[in-house]
Amino acid sequence: MHSYHIDAFGGPDNLGMREQAQPEPGPTEIVVRIRARSLNYRDVLILERRYPVPAREGVVPISDGAGEVVAVGPQVSRFAVGDRVAATYFPRWIDGPFAMHVAMEQFGCTRDGLLADFLLADEQALVKVPAHLSFEESATLACAGLTAWSGLTGPRPVVAGETVLTIGSGGVALFAMQFAKLFGARVIAVTSTAEKTSLLQEHGADATVVTGEHEAWDVAVRDLTDGHGVDHVVETGGLKTLPYSLKSCADAGELALAAVLGDGTLAAPALSGATTIRRYYVGSRAAFEKMNTAIARNGLRPVIDSVYPFEQAREAYQHFASRRQSGKVVIGG
Amino acid sequence: MHSYHIDAFGGPDNLGMREQAQPEPGPTEIVVRIRARSLNYRDVLILERRYPVPAREGVVPISDGAGEVVAVGPQVSRFAVGDRVAATYFPRWIDGPFAMHVAMEQFGCTRDGLLADFLLADEQALVKVPAHLSFEESATLACAGLTAWSGLTGPRPVVAGETVLTIGSGGVALFAMQFAKLFGARVIAVTSTAEKTSLLQEHGADATVVTGEHEAWDVAVRDLTDGHGVDHVVETGGLKTLPYSLKSCADAGELALAAVLGDGTLAAPALSGATTIRRYYVGSRAAFEKMNTAIARNGLRPVIDSVYPFEQAREAYQHFASRRQSGKVVIGG
Amino acid sequence: MHSYHIDAFGGPDNLGMREQAQPEPGPTEIVVRIRARSLNYRDVLILERRYPVPAREGVVPISDGAGEVVAVGPQVSRFAVGDRVAATYFPRWIDGPFAMHVAMEQFGCTRDGLLADFLLADEQALVKVPAHLSFEESATLACAGLTAWSGLTGPRPVVAGETVLTIGSGGVALFAMQFAKLFGARVIAVTSTAEKTSLLQEHGADATVVTGEHEAWDVAVRDLTDGHGVDHVVETGGLKTLPYSLKSCADAGELALAAVLGDGTLAAPALSGATTIRRYYVGSRAAFEKMNTAIARNGLRPVIDSVYPFEQAREAYQHFASRRQSGKVVIGG
Amino acid sequence: MHSYHIDAFGGPDNLGMREQAQPEPGPTEIVVRIRARSLNYRDVLILERRYPVPAREGVVPISDGAGEVVAVGPQVSRFAVGDRVAATYFPRWIDGPFAMHVAMEQFGCTRDGLLADFLLADEQALVKVPAHLSFEESATLACAGLTAWSGLTGPRPVVAGETVLTIGSGGVALFAMQFAKLFGARVIAVTSTAEKTSLLQEHGADATVVTGEHEAWDVAVRDLTDGHGVDHVVETGGLKTLPYSLKSCADAGELALAAVLGDGTLAAPALSGATTIRRYYVGSRAAFEKMNTAIARNGLRPVIDSVYPFEQAREAYQHFASRRQSGKVVIGG
Repeated sequence: MHSYHIDAFGGPDNLGMREQAQPEPGPTEIVVRIRARSLNYRDVLILERRYPVPAREGVVPISDGAGEVVAVGPQVSRFAVGDRVAATYFPRWIDGPFAMHVAMEQFGCTRDGLLADFLLADEQALVKVPAHLSFEESATLACAGLTAWSGLTGPRPVVAGETVLTIGSGGVALFAMQFAKLFGARVIAVTSTAEKTSLLQEHGADATVVTGEHEAWDVAVRDLTDGHGVDHVVETGGLKTLPYSLKSCADAGELALAAVLGDGTLAAPALSGATTIRRYYVGSRAAFEKMNTAIARNGLRPVIDSVYPFEQAREAYQHFASRRQSGKVVIGG
Repeated sequence: MHSYHIDAFGGPDNLGMREQAQPEPGPTEIVVRIRARSLNYRDVLILERRYPVPAREGVVPISDGAGEVVAVGPQVSRFAVGDRVAATYFPRWIDGPFAMHVAMEQFGCTRDGLLADFLLADEQALVKVPAHLSFEESATLACAGLTAWSGLTGPRPVVAGETVLTIGSGGVALFAMQFAKLFGARVIAVTSTAEKTSLLQEHGADATVVTGEHEAWDVAVRDLTDGHGVDHVVETGGLKTLPYSLKSCADAGELALAAVLGDGTLAAPALSGATTIRRYYVGSRAAFEKMNTAIARNGLRPVIDSVYPFEQAREAYQHFASRRQSGKVVIGG
Repeated sequence: MHSYHIDAFGGPDNLGMREQAQPEPGPTEIVVRIRARSLNYRDVLILERRYPVPAREGVVPISDGAGEVVAVGPQVSRFAVGDRVAATYFPRWIDGPFAMHVAMEQFGCTRDGLLADFLLADEQALVKVPAHLSFEESATLACAGLTAWSGLTGPRPVVAGETVLTIGSGGVALFAMQFAKLFGARVIAVTSTAEKTSLLQEHGADATVVTGEHEAWDVAVRDLTDGHGVDHVVETGGLKTLPYSLKSCADAGELALAAVLGDGTLAAPALSGATTIRRYYVGSRAAFEKMNTAIARNGLRPVIDSVYPFEQAREAYQHFASRRQSGKVVIGG
Repeated sequence: MHSYHIDAFGGPDNLGMREQAQPEPGPTEIVVRIRARSLNYRDVLILERRYPVPAREGVVPISDGAGEVVAVGPQVSRFAVGDRVAATYFPRWIDGPFAMHVAMEQFGCTRDGLLADFLLADEQALVKVPAHLSFEESATLACAGLTAWSGLTGPRPVVAGETVLTIGSGGVALFAMQFAKLFGARVIAVTSTAEKTSLLQEHGADATVVTGEHEAWDVAVRDLTDGHGVDHVVETGGLKTLPYSLKSCADAGELALAAVLGDGTLAAPALSGATTIRRYYVGSRAAFEKMNTAIARNGLRPVIDSVYPFEQAREAYQHFASRRQSGKVVIGG
């Protein structure tokens, strides 16, 4: 089989293709013929050695992908040959609350990921994907889809009629809009790019705010809610947006913090409201399966920007890093 | 003003019309010109003196209705003249958990209800109604709408992708279907009347089961869920359906018990699964307001069977008692 | 090693001892030298073939026990030789909500249990026990302890100051009293045996009600709460107590139904309050570990009635079945 | 009656005493003979005009106090003459979630407070106090007690066996320790003052950390939890402690943010864990009543540093502002 490897940390040029034998499953393992992968910002960070979890040199990159089961070990009970599956972001987080030590194990980081023809993994590390989705669509769910889902279905889940604030037009934000609409919520989407407003509206935004058009864009958001504020934020921006998204919140609202904040500072008055800030990471396998059921029942389709062939994986990385995409960047084949 | 009164307990013939002076608001009170009311089964029970909360003889009946504010007391802060409002079912249950002693006070039962031209009440006892709804539609929300809403948004709220079971085609069941669809859930509706299946499908049922066509209809429901069972039941049937609806439930599912069960017995094996039975009553004013926001944001419209003029209130009762309606029976004027 | 087996279903006389080779661990397995076991009513039901989950003939009985790890497979990461451990009731329920198909696998029922010198099991099926407890005490936790814990820490957990009702003086009830006191709650304990009241008071009951001394003992319970009712019930009784325990509940209270109800009927008016009935089963491994932390931090000690030597396991069963014990019946050795 | 008033903003010297007529209750009001008050840091901030909610000049200061009912209006139903009561911090927050606009009304700030012989208030604004507490003790509950209670009983309440971190030896921290112990939790208390460690241990701390003795005191806290981290923080410190208390948290832990943070900045890496930050304010009347039940059932007694006579209210303020106290500073009379 063919697989890409991070030969050295840096840019996509350091991704080298190798040829290996097709893997054989152990007793509880399955082999998946990967048909599509999608890129997340973490894949760029890993390549640049800026991701908090240190990657192994030589690792096969990419966490998210989908394919079909081609071989199963003798004790496998969750899957059969031919099943259409996706890998989980945290292969050992099955259910229950998050634990950092479990999250330290990740495909495309500490262990070989999905930028290869085949994936070998314990059957516990995968889930079935919705039948109405293509492999390309299914490949977008594990990180971006589940991060959006978990941001809206935490201890204070979205209730129909509530207002959800999304930040930008990245993969998580687009999924968050779609899920929020699916839950009967209203969506206000902020973006720094006026040209993106029609895309945002197309994918569920009931109202949009272009950040650069306001001195303090939280005022514009509050105005759109008659002063009430938004009930939920899926904060994918970072330190630049966080002070405003916090101020956009209703009393007793929740800000689900998905963004990696990096090294700056946050002015303390941003914490003076009555908002709960919930730092969280992707989600468990149980949540992934719940999300897939919701997607399947409602025929929801992920937003795909472009599909690159397997041979052009480096070009896919370059396009993704340009941040000009509208939806998920997929690597097929 | 004109008002109907329960001159004696029995049937609709005992509803006598009287003429009274239009009420004046006290300091914290408002006067509402009632434009529409809707009937609930409790109104029949009250008339027949079979309702658990004893009604006052001579009381103006009916709990549910909507109208416009025509006068406000000097300390009123929630409403202004001209506001479109509905009365709450339990005028003293503002927020927080249910308390039986609070629920003992009810419009159309312990105190004068809405089958009159005007309602005088403390401003705390009313809510604003969604702008897109007519008075007739707004009059259906307080009991049937909120009972459905509370059945699905309790401590274990419906999550998109889950399956909800509804019982019959009464007002609560129709609202429950609409809300379940609004939340992204799947709806299985059971009915004893094959002719009602198209109505149920029209209002959101993804699948229907006609109870009489099965020896044990829970088997049919389970089959429709690939053996998983339903995640939620809004049980509006009673002792005839409860053993089957319980057996229809998924492990860790919730049955929200809205039905008044009366005097029979329940076979204990019905309680042998792993279902939570949550007995509940309508909902608080805070929940009513949340529901109204959800209805307004999503343009949801209640299902109305028929509208009778104020002068034909008795005929409305008779039609309602016949149980041939499909949707809410409204008394206008 | 020596092990007892259910040679035929019936009574303790059908427990036959056999000699087998000491087990060797597979890659993810551990071998535990069992030092103590405790009996639960389910063990009697299994022996009499009345338990809902059918046991395998020839199975080694008993689910609950504790011992020390004497051998570990090469991939074992949770335990080391010398660790003091207990088996879980449902060896495959790790975390997250209950699932009936997972609960179908049980030690001492579908697979060999703990009435033997050694237990061989996957490392996922065991937990460490609190350091201050003896093996005899540790052997009481898996079923009775965790059933009490889960009954009080569900979706509506006990809050300090609330009142908990316990039924009888069985193992679950005694643990429930201890945990309720640990949580800062008040305990009302009902018993059918006036002689047991001092035992109940000794183990945490703030007040006791002897059922036979009242026509309707729920009235006595309500009186003890100034009419408010109890906030929680851990219902371990059955159909005889359930109608009264339900009527003892406060509005919005929770009855955690641990009892197996069998085949009778329940009068529907028992369901007319505003109580949530939560049917549940023991608890997950994650809950077991939380409970053990609570026990360890607070130095809580299980109540032991008697300890029989391994050779007198049949006598232990007989004593347990007599229902004259006060606390757990343990089989040592 | 005698009452103190904030004649001008500044220090305690600006508190002027006046003589007024004893108030008469309106229909739903009660008159309380105040027997004791306690000081909170907000009272100092209000006096110095640094409190976020602007106080009225001439207002009677102090939010917390207790006394006995001496007159009731004709419609009062919650209280009778002779009842022992305390005022709520937010007189209009009855139940349900926090709302900033409701919190804008406060005794001793926007309306006359408790540093007077009598309080006139709507009956909804008060609660009964535990029978075993003196007026002095009862006067400490409304702000400090309830802030501690709400910090531990939020959407992710403390479970027995969990670890709670408290900051310093102020009134909230001391109550938080007592409640945490009442709930069966372990308490780690940090303090900047080595001399306070024995006080902290006396009131429930299982372990103490003196912040100045460590470069990064979160490491010391984590070590005390075997690296797990604390499950809950009641953060009463501010920007100086927040980065460390956040880093002290276990995965999926909760930091309840009670401190007013002021104007500094927070380094973003403090937000990189997996902790939920829940900003909150005191609590509702319903929570106050639940807390009082817990206090009453368990005989818990607030920690009082000193009691000043009514005539020495200014001295009480001065002592409180010195921050040398250990427990609540009370003004009697």
